[in-house]
Amino acid sequence: MKLAETLGIELPIVQAPMAGVQASRLAIAVSRAGGLGSLPCAMLSPEAIADEIGAIRAATDRPFNLNFFCHVMPRPDADRDARWRESLAAAHAEFGIDPATIGTGAGRNPFDEAAAELVEALRPPVVSFHFGLPEPALLARVKATGAIVMSSATTVAEARWLESRGADVVIAQGLEAGGHRGHFLSHDLGEQLGLFALVPQLVAAVRIPVVAAGGIADAACVRAALALGASGVQAGTAFLRTPEADTSALHRAALAGDEARHTALTNLFTGRPARGIVNRFLREHGPMSPLAPEFPLATAASGPLRAAAEKQGSAEFSALWSGQNASGARPVPAAEIVRGLAAGLPG
Amino acid sequence: MKLAETLGIELPIVQAPMAGVQASRLAIAVSRAGGLGSLPCAMLSPEAIADEIGAIRAATDRPFNLNFFCHVMPRPDADRDARWRESLAAAHAEFGIDPATIGTGAGRNPFDEAAAELVEALRPPVVSFHFGLPEPALLARVKATGAIVMSSATTVAEARWLESRGADVVIAQGLEAGGHRGHFLSHDLGEQLGLFALVPQLVAAVRIPVVAAGGIADAACVRAALALGASGVQAGTAFLRTPEADTSALHRAALAGDEARHTALTNLFTGRPARGIVNRFLREHGPMSPLAPEFPLATAASGPLRAAAEKQGSAEFSALWSGQNASGARPVPAAEIVRGLAAGLPG
Repeated sequence: MKLAETLGIELPIVQAPMAGVQASRLAIAVSRAGGLGSLPCAMLSPEAIADEIGAIRAATDRPFNLNFFCHVMPRPDADRDARWRESLAAAHAEFGIDPATIGTGAGRNPFDEAAAELVEALRPPVVSFHFGLPEPALLARVKATGAIVMSSATTVAEARWLESRGADVVIAQGLEAGGHRGHFLSHDLGEQLGLFALVPQLVAAVRIPVVAAGGIADAACVRAALALGASGVQAGTAFLRTPEADTSALHRAALAGDEARHTALTNLFTGRPARGIVNRFLREHGPMSPLAPEFPLATAASGPLRAAAEKQGSAEFSALWSGQNASGARPVPAAEIVRGLAAGLPG
Repeated sequence: MKLAETLGIELPIVQAPMAGVQASRLAIAVSRAGGLGSLPCAMLSPEAIADEIGAIRAATDRPFNLNFFCHVMPRPDADRDARWRESLAAAHAEFGIDPATIGTGAGRNPFDEAAAELVEALRPPVVSFHFGLPEPALLARVKATGAIVMSSATTVAEARWLESRGADVVIAQGLEAGGHRGHFLSHDLGEQLGLFALVPQLVAAVRIPVVAAGGIADAACVRAALALGASGVQAGTAFLRTPEADTSALHRAALAGDEARHTALTNLFTGRPARGIVNRFLREHGPMSPLAPEFPLATAASGPLRAAAEKQGSAEFSALWSGQNASGARPVPAAEIVRGLAAGLPG
């Protein structure tokens, strides 16, 4: 298959990078199984990234993907932040959180000079981006290493933009997908497309391979994605209950329960819309809130709430990222998830 | 195929009933081509329905589908209606509409006693419903005629509800679909699923055949829908530019243009969320408005605006219903659209 050749892998199956719930262990398991394992870097220091890459290379010589966010850091808005904290005051009080202890940390780093140096030094075979692409000079440095570059598109306009700026592969992120929406040209959620409408339109609009993402749960979904013209698939939620993921016990339980039927796009955790299972936090404060500071600044005040609630055994303030079809998330080794998806590839 | 046998048709392809933009001509063309033609009845009087059925039967002896809405008529809310009209006052003035001439007509009728009598007298082979099912006594009368009963589900809970109350076929209406959302158990739009996530979950949840609807544009989409486990497809937007549809010239032009890339769910036209191409009305007043009266009462004040703007050659206040993938809407005879979709069926 063309995509597998481009990426140097056996199966056109990409493991979606999922910052906060997985690191090298999952990437290794997927790459060993013939797919493309991904290491999410948005929440890791350069040193941690180098360590994780070392772990991957010690375990397998197969290709892997390094994923970065490439948002522009917003200027902090003290007024908005104050209103946001005020709106969370009752919840903070309920969990005994002293507002004075809440920092202003960002939580997610964009691809920058240091990241480019890291890519130049460590030469990952594949580099993927979310929220567009880095500025041209930084992107040129990545491409000069020979890395294959992928990024997510949620509309035809975004796919064309990515292709014209040098992306080698475009990931069609359907509205069904869990975690952060990758939109970057328009922030109007009304423009976000279901995968069934998105894939055929992207396939018609660009010449680079299109990878279908969002709701890819099993072999049937893979067959459907290929029928729509996709060159491969990206699956995330399907890997969340594997032993190689670092998903919390609370998150695993939610994915296995009936509540996983009801997900929503919420900006409460980071400031950007991301799909997760509806819990008390989303019901009481969102799921979308005009008060949440810009990405990724909302994290500073919502993070401590999540940590305090989890300490009490509650997932009601946790980011329970999930796509709209959690049925593929089974508690089996990642290699078995890969094999299950691969059963949908042409024989 | 099982679905085609159940419905007594050659191809498991249902033409979506589209009130306001088609009548018997399109239904006849689709049924003659081997699919299931549908007659939308929500905006027709019993006499008109009888006439249209007469026209269908004079043209073909193949099965056809009679479609009804089964909403409960809301109690008019004078306050809300006054605020709604007030919000539209500037637009009414711009088009020279005298507010005193705006009626209170409902615009869409639910399935009722008269409709049940009509079904008993005229015995259509298939009857489909939107917004759930009629009350049990009325539904029993429909089923007693031997008609196959279909209805739309947008969630697993709705599909199970429909099956348990006697539906013979469930239509999985993905979020991509044009026109009115069929949800009836929950009105939380956050629970609406993309077709990629909806079809596999409905197939796993019910024993009756599942028909995939929403974004079905061509043979590739049909292959994908069947891969997900659907027993057939329902296509609407794909038929809107055929000569047999009554789609206005303005609506046809919008479907053929780049603006069709941007659709939204809007309640401005009827009071219920429906997907259409974004125009000035949606941009300035919605797309969703808390002021719009309950379905179908919003129509009374928005209808005259649409009519006046259209008289001036403008589609900016028209309901330009469209799914998220209008690429399948080609200006060719309906039989050719059916043949194009049928190319995706197993040979």
